[in-house]
Amino acid sequence: MHGLMMNRPLSVIELLRYAAEIHGAGEIVSVRTEGDLHRQTYARTFQRTAQLAHGLAALGVTQGDRVATLAWNGHRHFELYYAISGMGAVCHTINPRLSAEQMLYIIGHAEDTVLFVDLTFVPILEALKDHLPAGLKIVVMTDASHMPTSALDLHCYEDLIASHPTDYDWPDLPEETAASLCYTSGTTGNPKGSLYSHRSTVLHALFIAVTLPRSLHEGARLLPVVPMFHVNSWGMPYAAPIVGASLIMPGGKLDGPSLYGLMESEKVTASWGVPTVWLGLRAEIEARGKPPSSLDQVVIGGSAAPRSMIEFFEARDIDVCHAWGMTEMSPVGTTGQLPNTMNDAPFADRMARKSLQGRRIFGVDLKIVGEDGQRLPHDGKAVGELYVRGNAVISGYFNNEDATKAAIDAEGWFGTGDVASISPDGYLSIQDRSKDLIKSGGEWISSIDLENIAMSHPEVANCAVIAIAHPKWDERPVLVVVPKDGCQPKLADIHALMDPHFAKWQLPDDLVFVDALPLTATGKVSKLTLRQQFADYVLPDVR
Amino acid sequence: MHGLMMNRPLSVIELLRYAAEIHGAGEIVSVRTEGDLHRQTYARTFQRTAQLAHGLAALGVTQGDRVATLAWNGHRHFELYYAISGMGAVCHTINPRLSAEQMLYIIGHAEDTVLFVDLTFVPILEALKDHLPAGLKIVVMTDASHMPTSALDLHCYEDLIASHPTDYDWPDLPEETAASLCYTSGTTGNPKGSLYSHRSTVLHALFIAVTLPRSLHEGARLLPVVPMFHVNSWGMPYAAPIVGASLIMPGGKLDGPSLYGLMESEKVTASWGVPTVWLGLRAEIEARGKPPSSLDQVVIGGSAAPRSMIEFFEARDIDVCHAWGMTEMSPVGTTGQLPNTMNDAPFADRMARKSLQGRRIFGVDLKIVGEDGQRLPHDGKAVGELYVRGNAVISGYFNNEDATKAAIDAEGWFGTGDVASISPDGYLSIQDRSKDLIKSGGEWISSIDLENIAMSHPEVANCAVIAIAHPKWDERPVLVVVPKDGCQPKLADIHALMDPHFAKWQLPDDLVFVDALPLTATGKVSKLTLRQQFADYVLPDVR
Ligand SMILES: Nc1ncnc2c1ncn2[C@@H]1O[C@H](COP(=O)(O)OP(=O)(O)OP(=O)(O)O)[C@@H](O)[C@H]1O
Ligand SMILES: Nc1ncnc2c1ncn2[C@@H]1O[C@H](COP(=O)(O)OP(=O)(O)OP(=O)(O)O)[C@@H](O)[C@H]1O
Ligand SMILES: [Mg+2]
Ligand SMILES: [Mg+2]
Repeated sequence: MHGLMMNRPLSVIELLRYAAEIHGAGEIVSVRTEGDLHRQTYARTFQRTAQLAHGLAALGVTQGDRVATLAWNGHRHFELYYAISGMGAVCHTINPRLSAEQMLYIIGHAEDTVLFVDLTFVPILEALKDHLPAGLKIVVMTDASHMPTSALDLHCYEDLIASHPTDYDWPDLPEETAASLCYTSGTTGNPKGSLYSHRSTVLHALFIAVTLPRSLHEGARLLPVVPMFHVNSWGMPYAAPIVGASLIMPGGKLDGPSLYGLMESEKVTASWGVPTVWLGLRAEIEARGKPPSSLDQVVIGGSAAPRSMIEFFEARDIDVCHAWGMTEMSPVGTTGQLPNTMNDAPFADRMARKSLQGRRIFGVDLKIVGEDGQRLPHDGKAVGELYVRGNAVISGYFNNEDATKAAIDAEGWFGTGDVASISPDGYLSIQDRSKDLIKSGGEWISSIDLENIAMSHPEVANCAVIAIAHPKWDERPVLVVVPKDGCQPKLADIHALMDPHFAKWQLPDDLVFVDALPLTATGKVSKLTLRQQFADYVLPDVR
Repeated sequence: MHGLMMNRPLSVIELLRYAAEIHGAGEIVSVRTEGDLHRQTYARTFQRTAQLAHGLAALGVTQGDRVATLAWNGHRHFELYYAISGMGAVCHTINPRLSAEQMLYIIGHAEDTVLFVDLTFVPILEALKDHLPAGLKIVVMTDASHMPTSALDLHCYEDLIASHPTDYDWPDLPEETAASLCYTSGTTGNPKGSLYSHRSTVLHALFIAVTLPRSLHEGARLLPVVPMFHVNSWGMPYAAPIVGASLIMPGGKLDGPSLYGLMESEKVTASWGVPTVWLGLRAEIEARGKPPSSLDQVVIGGSAAPRSMIEFFEARDIDVCHAWGMTEMSPVGTTGQLPNTMNDAPFADRMARKSLQGRRIFGVDLKIVGEDGQRLPHDGKAVGELYVRGNAVISGYFNNEDATKAAIDAEGWFGTGDVASISPDGYLSIQDRSKDLIKSGGEWISSIDLENIAMSHPEVANCAVIAIAHPKWDERPVLVVVPKDGCQPKLADIHALMDPHFAKWQLPDDLVFVDALPLTATGKVSKLTLRQQFADYVLPDVR
């Protein structure tokens, strides 16, 4: 028997309409490419979004069209999110750190008809000029006075929207309608597209809002360091408007001193980003001797947050929430805020717990599966491939049957490619990406666990553990370290730190220094590149 | 174009499954009819709910069946909510304050096959014995040692569930599946049924969780005074498990001293109820000289919260959130927490704002409509009938075409029967129920506004303004007052309080004293009954 309730399609534009009405004074503060700091309320943003929708229509955009963006975090990018999805088109965010080849691939694969670009990235397009699809319209996200001279035929954002009315007759769309599109960074083969729907986007926003109220509440001032060009900035642009949190948009200035300055001047209360970004902020906090004064929570995800990083912030009364997720999950899967039953637990226990990847958010189901495809118990010991299910998880990749087939199992769950255990009380512990796992003498070694400990050595600025081929053991772990200025940490000392936690045969065979670790397009350490860099390296015991 | 996301049905049982896994130590504390105070974690509750589902199946309950409850707030009622809906049946909560006739009507109309009853209400059923449908199975919500001797054929709740396994293979149900059923109290004609779906229930829970984090957060201890037998206790039993708030269930003890005692001993942080209940708590707070020590927020709705009541709590550092809603809305429509822009506003301004009915929650749309059916502006002045729309609003009444036709307008909105204005910044101001409006000389007078001021008179314990027929003016307002012990407030003094806010012709023509105001089945002042009581009353100027 069916209930007798209205069925209103969940819809992205309703998030902003709500903010404009109920949290009208909440603001979007943007460090703009023009060099200024720009402030705009949700009320005004909703009006400009309506103007932009008219502008898009004037460019010929209709429902289902893919409209691309190549931009930093800022209010115009936010307006694009809502105007494009709101009118029924699909907002395709492009990661500017992709290679030229990958960028052309996804513009072609998505069949983008219009591309909005920040001033910063116009040179990228100029370099690609002869390869861009014929008919692709390009709009520069700036005003007339800042328009660059260019060989490209460029539209101007502010001119595009200026003459239009500040309201728009937003269509009622079925909630399954595609709202946005994000490609993986393509560390393995060509990038693959996740095509989010209005339903998945709104539900994901509600799910993270109820899960992370410490970041997401009325009056919060949230700084998304994670870019809007990757997985919709982890959903913050959708969740903040519901609860009435302001968004402090850093533009392209993501170095430690810039972030610190912005956090201080804008009284930022929470910020979300990947570990590499926090290395920079951490150094700045050390230099200044104190953290930004209003900062209350950082959410760290995208790669494992080293325990030493978590402790650094927590020791300064900044709550750390370690989160795990992926592009294909919109992205949040698990979050690591502690249950209040641990309020009085010793610091070390709390930090140990926080180093895990956290527990599932409402709306996400997890299972781990052995090599035989059978479910493994959630006993904190069994390690298997992690599969997920939920309304904000993809059911397949955009126009990519092969990748879809490889990713979805017989029960309809999505295979994450991560290898993990789950404890009886629900804590996820990511051991490795399956492709980064180190297999030594038939046993797996978790590179994440080793890195976590190496990072706690005071002379290690950053590190990664990779697998190196070995004639007898198949693979052996090697520790690649970026030392702190003027330091040269010793392998023996790091072994001593690892000793209590690992079997002898699990310890890295060697330590090598590098000046910097290669990063992926999403700002994570690229182990693929690192393994390529070390292709000719030979292990000590086989030299 | 459709997105490529999994479509997982929103499902009531997932709320409890989540609580059991993630907030497993959160608890349900129940004042039971057996006389004890019972504690049970969400983890244990989920197990007992599985046992109960097996028990229901053993009784012959199958998907779509209506299973009724006649019970106070307590853990067994909570288990019934989840077991019944979780297995695909419909949980029909019966208001024990309905008349015998109405109760029989809705049991028949709903075609209930099983009825679960608290010890307290067994006598009601015994009185109805000869009129209950043949084949109706009755289960008493207690254990074997407390089973009453009765002429009825009674099953025992604890025996029903005892032998069954603590897990259950909860079916995947389409999210539109009916989950629960609640009849209006029938102050006008026969009660009408709202048939909530899994989708509407889960969305409503998410909507109120993101709106009222001060009540709904991990570790909160929430005392639902509003009964689970009416509109699902305003959704608290569904929202609390998501966020990990504990539920403190008062059973049948809703008087001021009992509530105060429970709030104190269980460290209750928030409580939701109708104004009449707060009168009792208020008196107890006055008697003891201080409020319960952990109480941080009260949510008042169901009738207009008098400003004097709001000020009473706020002056004692207890936040008051005035909310408006109705059975047909699951029920929350608007909530009155102030925007943080008012944090530094003077107390009087804050209280004035809090006296309004608040602003729409995410997922609810409001419109006001004039007598010609045209939309009226949200200018804070225009007054019209209030219509609503949203995923948690009914699309019609259960098996009642006439009532449905009367309630849903051409655009598909639901007519609330309330008369209201909406301010430009979204504040709803309920003037009256349309059937309680007073029409004098062709102009409307708001009884709610008059009552609000009369309540601020120190000698008025409770009051209501009703319309009395007048040969010239059609209707004139009369103030019915329950005076405080030993007091006799004067009409002239109350007029003096009203004077600054009303035109002379809007003031009540007379003041009459009563010992108590008649209440509806949901604990609100019944103006219908009051008007009947005063059927023979004659206004002073026509005596
Ligand atoms: N807290 C975490 N701890 C460990 N690993 C994490 C964490 N959060 C995310 N990851 C890793 O990041 C992956 C998801 O990242 P994302 O989808 O953003 O791009 P990517 O997988 O890094 O790159 P690609 O685009 O090539 O898929 C996860 O599958 C997991 O391997
Ligand atoms: N904050 C409030 N201020 C004024 N009136 C309110 C408020 N909250 C609820 N109401 C009134 O209560 C009504 C909804 O109550 P509910 O659906 O629980 O039962 P009822 O309408 O009192 O009784 P019935 O069962 O006969 O419909 C609203 O339509 C409105 O008239
Ligand atoms: Mg990936
Ligand atoms: Mg009603």
